[in-house]
Amino acid sequence: MDTPAALLDVVKMQRNIQRMQQRANDLGVRLRPHVKTHKCAEVVAAQVAAGAHGVTVSTLKEAEYCFDQGVRDILYAVAMAPHKLPQALALRRRGCALTLITDSLAGAQAIVDFGDQHEETFAVMIEIDCDGHRSGVKPHDPLLLEIARRLGDSLTGVLTHAGESYGLDATDALQAIAEQERARCVEAAQRIRSAGLRCDQVSVGSTPTALSAANLDGVTELRAGVYAFFDLVMHNIGVCRIDELALSVLTTVIGHQAEKGWIITDAGWMAMSRDRGTQAQKRDFGYGQVCDEQGGVIEGLLLSSANQEHGVAQFDTGQVDVTAQFPLGTRLRILPNHACATGTQFGTYYALLENGDTQPWERLRGW
Amino acid sequence: MDTPAALLDVVKMQRNIQRMQQRANDLGVRLRPHVKTHKCAEVVAAQVAAGAHGVTVSTLKEAEYCFDQGVRDILYAVAMAPHKLPQALALRRRGCALTLITDSLAGAQAIVDFGDQHEETFAVMIEIDCDGHRSGVKPHDPLLLEIARRLGDSLTGVLTHAGESYGLDATDALQAIAEQERARCVEAAQRIRSAGLRCDQVSVGSTPTALSAANLDGVTELRAGVYAFFDLVMHNIGVCRIDELALSVLTTVIGHQAEKGWIITDAGWMAMSRDRGTQAQKRDFGYGQVCDEQGGVIEGLLLSSANQEHGVAQFDTGQVDVTAQFPLGTRLRILPNHACATGTQFGTYYALLENGDTQPWERLRGW
Repeated sequence: MDTPAALLDVVKMQRNIQRMQQRANDLGVRLRPHVKTHKCAEVVAAQVAAGAHGVTVSTLKEAEYCFDQGVRDILYAVAMAPHKLPQALALRRRGCALTLITDSLAGAQAIVDFGDQHEETFAVMIEIDCDGHRSGVKPHDPLLLEIARRLGDSLTGVLTHAGESYGLDATDALQAIAEQERARCVEAAQRIRSAGLRCDQVSVGSTPTALSAANLDGVTELRAGVYAFFDLVMHNIGVCRIDELALSVLTTVIGHQAEKGWIITDAGWMAMSRDRGTQAQKRDFGYGQVCDEQGGVIEGLLLSSANQEHGVAQFDTGQVDVTAQFPLGTRLRILPNHACATGTQFGTYYALLENGDTQPWERLRGW
Repeated sequence: MDTPAALLDVVKMQRNIQRMQQRANDLGVRLRPHVKTHKCAEVVAAQVAAGAHGVTVSTLKEAEYCFDQGVRDILYAVAMAPHKLPQALALRRRGCALTLITDSLAGAQAIVDFGDQHEETFAVMIEIDCDGHRSGVKPHDPLLLEIARRLGDSLTGVLTHAGESYGLDATDALQAIAEQERARCVEAAQRIRSAGLRCDQVSVGSTPTALSAANLDGVTELRAGVYAFFDLVMHNIGVCRIDELALSVLTTVIGHQAEKGWIITDAGWMAMSRDRGTQAQKRDFGYGQVCDEQGGVIEGLLLSSANQEHGVAQFDTGQVDVTAQFPLGTRLRILPNHACATGTQFGTYYALLENGDTQPWERLRGW
């Protein structure tokens, strides 16, 4: 196998998928995995086989891809841009139960107007802002009911995502934000229902909150993405062990700077991505945690810097004779900060199966 | 055109290409552009038409791609990993004048041994460390002559890259590092020649040093990559004006958080990359400088944060009524921190031609 290459440990992936599905089952909600992390048909199939109820996507291209794989129930969880409506309509006309989201009157109006012009009732959820992280309407904002009324028969529910959970690493804080995510989304649904409108679906989730919630009363579905692979950011947050990370980058040692204790690898940022998500966390892993070829963590050896096709690995615990210990041609694996960002640098995952075989699994790219 | 999309202003690109070619001509050296920035046949063709003498690549896949486009003289400027030698041999057997590099005895030995086994004399340059940035042998290191002797007839020259120039932003400091890059590489060549060995080629370069060097006495060729597009990092270094940036990302406004002055765009890090190269520079542009749809800079409006498919743009100069000024569906362009990293997020550039037409230019990806 040439390097750099994206390796996917399928045994770990399957355990991660089972773990999240069991969480959703225990909490009494459906699981709608976010495919943006992996963008891979085989992973979608594993999630559906484990019990997933539809998928979440971050682009309409992902929606088309999943529909072509046989997934009918698809939620496009990015606020709908009016110019993308023809693409959404085409998917619905093919039989896809596609749900859109919006958080503005202008967005709702554009969807309804386009639907009227084409005799289509789109399914739309209103995005709720539960933590000030990004998009969404606050549950108590009068705008919520205006959007709900504007959507009329298109309204199917409310959805939120506690993106701020990524900044936490303590169990009690994670439980608190999970409860905030649940409570504010349920509050929004109840306000809509109190106004005499239907609001059947209440969708919440992020990997950290999904794995921290004490209960999901009032919620109908859970969304999460990165849990299928996990990564160093999730490890720092505290929701997975480092030996649960399913994705790694296989690399080759191409040189050294012996005086400095540097190992030069052929995995630079083109392979790892520029994601430095652990920089502000309790442990900064640089561009990744270095492991041996079999995936065993080499304690203290981090990819400390990265150029396009060069990575520099060094021990944070002090210098060793890296030329002797990791001679030219040595193979290593690097665990990434952020599985979504690292995965997208590759067109193919090499899936390491339980029986020892390796299979190429293609990955969707672009928009 | 759907968004996000990578737009390439061909008029600006051509000017940038002409400028660097003129620099090389004035300095009396050949120009060997680095295709790692753009990985695009049409850009290679423009560089060759302007006078480039061969290309530099960062992967053997780029080498194969350029050879298929008719470029025969190719330098693979990453230290050769022994397991990639069969791929390099195959290229040479097809008629490619491929040059490899190494900075170790083990690397030199692997190349020579493999060559002996296959009756092939590879062309190899020794990588010189001129600034402690990454790889390479120091010019005064006794190892230099050992590697040179080990390479024997394969040795064609020395090469260096002053990567530390990316950390500078003052003219005198840039001129000093350009001179250091030149002097140390020439010193290495002279040491090899003084030992009675041939060392014909002396190759130096980076975009900042290429545009700052007072002279390149003793140098035979100049390498540079990002100059074809330029980017905000180069602007901060001081080697280009902001209106010379050829690459931008077209995006659509998909929402707002009016209270905070946030404009939500459909260009997140999946489009811009996670590169935050301006973070440590004199001006931090966040994830990019926002422009209007025609490419005019909107002063003070930066993409301040990015999730996978969401970007948050806001004015650094204070809040304005963003919902009124940038309504849902507004198109904007974003200038990237790092053209190499942003380009690679896309499979296609949309080339904006001088006559007003737009052409899709495919881009190479992967390894």
